[in-house]
Amino acid sequence: MKVAVLGYGTVGVGVYEMLQAAEGLEAGPVLVRPGKVNEPFKVDSIEAITGDATVDAVAEVMGGVEPAFTYALAAIQAGKHFVTSNKALVAAKGVELNRAARENGVAFLFSAACGGGVPILHNLARAVETDEILSVGGILNGTTNYMLDQMQSIGLDYGEALRQAQQLGYAEADPTADVTGLDALRKIMLACAVAWGELPQEGLLNEGIDSFTAEDVRDLAARGFVCRLVASGKRAEDGRLAAYVEPVLVSAGDAESAVLRNYNMARYEGRCSGPIAMIGQGAGRYPTASAVLRDLSGIAAGESAMFPAGCVNGAADNSAEVHEYYVRLPKAAVHSLPVAAVLSDDGETLRFRTGEVSVKTMHETAASLRADHHAVFFAACRRSA
Amino acid sequence: MKVAVLGYGTVGVGVYEMLQAAEGLEAGPVLVRPGKVNEPFKVDSIEAITGDATVDAVAEVMGGVEPAFTYALAAIQAGKHFVTSNKALVAAKGVELNRAARENGVAFLFSAACGGGVPILHNLARAVETDEILSVGGILNGTTNYMLDQMQSIGLDYGEALRQAQQLGYAEADPTADVTGLDALRKIMLACAVAWGELPQEGLLNEGIDSFTAEDVRDLAARGFVCRLVASGKRAEDGRLAAYVEPVLVSAGDAESAVLRNYNMARYEGRCSGPIAMIGQGAGRYPTASAVLRDLSGIAAGESAMFPAGCVNGAADNSAEVHEYYVRLPKAAVHSLPVAAVLSDDGETLRFRTGEVSVKTMHETAASLRADHHAVFFAACRRSA
Repeated sequence: MKVAVLGYGTVGVGVYEMLQAAEGLEAGPVLVRPGKVNEPFKVDSIEAITGDATVDAVAEVMGGVEPAFTYALAAIQAGKHFVTSNKALVAAKGVELNRAARENGVAFLFSAACGGGVPILHNLARAVETDEILSVGGILNGTTNYMLDQMQSIGLDYGEALRQAQQLGYAEADPTADVTGLDALRKIMLACAVAWGELPQEGLLNEGIDSFTAEDVRDLAARGFVCRLVASGKRAEDGRLAAYVEPVLVSAGDAESAVLRNYNMARYEGRCSGPIAMIGQGAGRYPTASAVLRDLSGIAAGESAMFPAGCVNGAADNSAEVHEYYVRLPKAAVHSLPVAAVLSDDGETLRFRTGEVSVKTMHETAASLRADHHAVFFAACRRSA
Repeated sequence: MKVAVLGYGTVGVGVYEMLQAAEGLEAGPVLVRPGKVNEPFKVDSIEAITGDATVDAVAEVMGGVEPAFTYALAAIQAGKHFVTSNKALVAAKGVELNRAARENGVAFLFSAACGGGVPILHNLARAVETDEILSVGGILNGTTNYMLDQMQSIGLDYGEALRQAQQLGYAEADPTADVTGLDALRKIMLACAVAWGELPQEGLLNEGIDSFTAEDVRDLAARGFVCRLVASGKRAEDGRLAAYVEPVLVSAGDAESAVLRNYNMARYEGRCSGPIAMIGQGAGRYPTASAVLRDLSGIAAGESAMFPAGCVNGAADNSAEVHEYYVRLPKAAVHSLPVAAVLSDDGETLRFRTGEVSVKTMHETAASLRADHHAVFFAACRRSA
């Protein structure tokens, strides 16, 4: 099977190298930006790939919704299998791509878009065939996990941790999508669609780690907790879909506390299988490329889809998900949330545990306080499953 | 696809129930012992299944090498796909079954034979297609993990922990295969064959937990360690295959220390993917049945093999694998191992850390001391990968 590659950045180089070594797969042309064609295997127009009858499959690792979506549709309509690592693309346009791929009789797979090298979506898609999925989730962003680990294990402050993540290539020059939880949110959107055939586009909530400070680290450590950024998806009995990202406090005995550096821990719970968790590197050239290659060899073995046939766009509703929260905010703003126990009070800033509050209320309250220029940090208090 | 089931014990009932609920799969006849045919779907001869042209696949969950092997060959030669949860069968006869299945153009899959509900072998087989596997291993026996957890978290002694595991149905009436590490050894044999095409039949070493005492628990806890039973498989550059099971000391920060109750943590490391670990329930009716069902739906999707085409029986060589060990033995016997640091000495019993010792030397030395009626406990001191 001959595979063209769209993009020749960190992951693209890894995919191209692995294709040259893989049995049964062959490296085809690589799409680069105009002016970057400096080797014979590189091309600078998508038509050079869609018009090449020897190309069986296209692996897209450019990132971003456009022009990736236009290229993806062109490849699928030209009868090429389509594999991607691009979570922004699949979160925004997955339903359209799934429909187009099925209409054109080609595969559409995207293991590398959630969990990096961790094969969570592939296994989730397999499990759906014979089991009922109760929940999906986990630590799905390697950049923020690296930053949290550095802040909590060696005491870096937020800015230092971010700079180090950027120097190591874990964080982009613009790290907004990572640190606000948007990247993890896109990944949990994909997992929801694989599990339940519904790709939520509205009602989603993401709290990141950009309010987390060295002072928070010290206070939590004294209480025996570390903070992880956790994505959650759940389908309630009444059909309502919860999908959100937020900081969560975990204890030394919890599995999440052993997820260090840039690692991911993705999980699902099946009614029969029970909870299944998978741990591996969530980012990086070869881990991500290995997920792209597994999808490609899966196509050769007959695998063709992760989203079910009738997958639709939908909406999340996080009003029925309830947690107690650890909250730090100015004393003046404390009336906005139910205080179950005050943890510390320095006259200006209060740290407290709330009573039960819905995810929707907690996220919206924090947004409203921030609109009033109050500094807020919050994290859910719950045990790992 | 119509599926006959061989065996109607804990797992067999789960498989039969799940088949009735699964889309695209259909429950066929169930083989039970003569005299146990008390419902219309039960039969008591394998010929009633091999001779039934409507049966497409056979799921064997009886356990034991015979008559399971005879039945498996009969099913395969009758053109039925063959799926099993039986690690003793595949460890002993996997090469023959793989050859027979390929000759007869049917599938031979055994996810449930290693890791219970954890899909490690399926993912390993996928990874092998495009990546080089460097090592395999993990906590592969739920019974002993449950016992170790109960001993170390609530202070049960060995006998109490074993009785509790038996009451909960985790341990067999004869628990020998579990507590001696033989069950975990069979599972690592399968993982080696999936990873490297060689099913080791000789040179294997298994140390279990049957020498572990409440006094050992207390001494290790004071030093910040817990004990886990870990299986390891590795292929060296020179082609030598290491395959063994032994107790390993882990610290609070290690991922293995968060693997509690009857859970398994199976892992592999790919050259490109890096380390991948999978955690889930290693035993139990529905977790194990869910793995059998995933194999069956995989066959419907075109999956047919876990062992590579030319898989052969081979031999392990554990002489090049070297660790430092924590050892407890009578003072009189201490000359048999290199002592790097004495940890405690009560006049009769010595606890110490060895210098570097090969796995082969450590296991053989312990066997030789036990032949002389010395009580010995040992555990490898190494960090998780």
